[in-house]
Amino acid sequence: MRKSEFELIRDIFAPLTESDPKAFALRDDAALLDVPTGFELVVTTDMLLEGVHFQMQDPADAIGQKVLRASLSDLAGKGAAPISYVLSCAWPNALPQAWIESFVSGLASDQKQFKVHCIGGDTSASTSGLAFSLTAFGLVETGKMLLRSGARPGDDLFVSGTIGDAWLGLQILKKRLDCEDEGASGWLIGRYLRPEPRTCLGRKLVELATASLDVSDGLVADAGHLAEASKVSITLRMDDIPISQPARDLGPDLAELITGGDDYELLFTGPPGRRSEILDAAHETGVPVRRVGIVADGTGVTVVDAGGRKIDLTSTGFRHF
Amino acid sequence: MRKSEFELIRDIFAPLTESDPKAFALRDDAALLDVPTGFELVVTTDMLLEGVHFQMQDPADAIGQKVLRASLSDLAGKGAAPISYVLSCAWPNALPQAWIESFVSGLASDQKQFKVHCIGGDTSASTSGLAFSLTAFGLVETGKMLLRSGARPGDDLFVSGTIGDAWLGLQILKKRLDCEDEGASGWLIGRYLRPEPRTCLGRKLVELATASLDVSDGLVADAGHLAEASKVSITLRMDDIPISQPARDLGPDLAELITGGDDYELLFTGPPGRRSEILDAAHETGVPVRRVGIVADGTGVTVVDAGGRKIDLTSTGFRHF
Repeated sequence: MRKSEFELIRDIFAPLTESDPKAFALRDDAALLDVPTGFELVVTTDMLLEGVHFQMQDPADAIGQKVLRASLSDLAGKGAAPISYVLSCAWPNALPQAWIESFVSGLASDQKQFKVHCIGGDTSASTSGLAFSLTAFGLVETGKMLLRSGARPGDDLFVSGTIGDAWLGLQILKKRLDCEDEGASGWLIGRYLRPEPRTCLGRKLVELATASLDVSDGLVADAGHLAEASKVSITLRMDDIPISQPARDLGPDLAELITGGDDYELLFTGPPGRRSEILDAAHETGVPVRRVGIVADGTGVTVVDAGGRKIDLTSTGFRHF
Repeated sequence: MRKSEFELIRDIFAPLTESDPKAFALRDDAALLDVPTGFELVVTTDMLLEGVHFQMQDPADAIGQKVLRASLSDLAGKGAAPISYVLSCAWPNALPQAWIESFVSGLASDQKQFKVHCIGGDTSASTSGLAFSLTAFGLVETGKMLLRSGARPGDDLFVSGTIGDAWLGLQILKKRLDCEDEGASGWLIGRYLRPEPRTCLGRKLVELATASLDVSDGLVADAGHLAEASKVSITLRMDDIPISQPARDLGPDLAELITGGDDYELLFTGPPGRRSEILDAAHETGVPVRRVGIVADGTGVTVVDAGGRKIDLTSTGFRHF
């Protein structure tokens, strides 16, 4: 017998708020949020759906983490320090309580890791699949939020981590791809299930980058978003795009890796004069950062090979419809 | 042929944000929100699902309004002035663009009426039903948010508007109830489809009420929430509970009206010494307010008849599971 709605909130969700009296232990209709002088509140929201953004066979705790991390990655891309979030959940009545407890345990462990906490939410019965919606709050120094629109001709283009791992992990999970090396397979799947928000790197970039966003639609598509918002063109050098060893070992089509999406790495630009500061800052946060392209006048994204020849890509990223 | 995801956001949703440059026309990954000195940000979130909170045969613009008004009503219950919101939408690919445009037109007209605007959101394809999640933001003077927990023994209990109309409207819509008077039927259905957030009244109550919340689970259930949070007992006088003429004319079971839910009226308490100020404030906002009960030591909610005899209620309100 599963707990009632009120019992679930009181016993399983309210502990996620216990560090913050202004969440009122989820016993009121709203939470209060303070914004310190000198800061602006950064707000981002995402909805994640069963069958679209996650699968029911994914571990419940990883789904909880992905729901939170997708928004934390958005905040990281904007240079904001995460503070708190509200979460709405819709689930079928038949969903076991143990699943919900595991989902919340994923949130709880991430709360510690990323120093955020829950301040509110909503739960509802769903007559169809599971659906989650999370709105995350962060702080950034007034006027300093990193935008998509700040890239200037001449800027370097950088990307964090490695690209394409999550896409490969998803292909392995969906049995569209065979990976005999269990260690590599597990690592790639982990990159899909538990993306790593680049929170510390994002904070450092507030003073260094000219434009930034997190890569969720695919490297090429998100470079396109940055180019469009900044009214510039971007050239990506295929050979400089960081690909992990487990990904390389699978001998994938590189074009698929850079258009696959779900990377949750940071893509950002900076003036050449600050190149070494940017790489030093990345080094300090322990996140590998690679210079992968340049910004110029014009529009659109071009991917070039080592000889500077344009590579034709058939797809440029994930769209919902 | 429906517009693509990006076109929908640019052409249909972005105009909802045009009054606010810090929404970046929905072209960035996050919005910025300022909180003026002397105020706290009030945050509330709700998820509304097809088949649970609304039906596909409801008018699309009314669904848009209900999604927004459910949260505006929460803010009103807390005494907060609404400022902005973020909205996530999941809809099937087969949903016609005209439906989406009508949904957004409902939001647009409510934005004018309630002086709020959209600052962000997310859209996703749904493989099952429609789902919406809205997080609303309001401002309240620091330390002044109306809580559920402030009621004290001796306080009066008040309710705004009339109770049970929305429940009757839903019964008529679901053809569980026959209402031959078309005018009355339309009015009751309207009370279900387009709840009226008591925003102006809520703002006035900041200086007058001791506890407050909006009635969504049913008058008796929400009185119970107030009693529990305030650690007091509440006695509701059945004969004083405001029932509209169209509702009375249907000769319904009053117990069903006061447990039915979806009223989105304000239920609040205040010291007897401020009774006339409270009624004057209500009069100024044009919202009828009725004194319906008293707060005392103890626990729980009792409903009594004109002779003070306890009325037994079989159900105490809507629960999701």
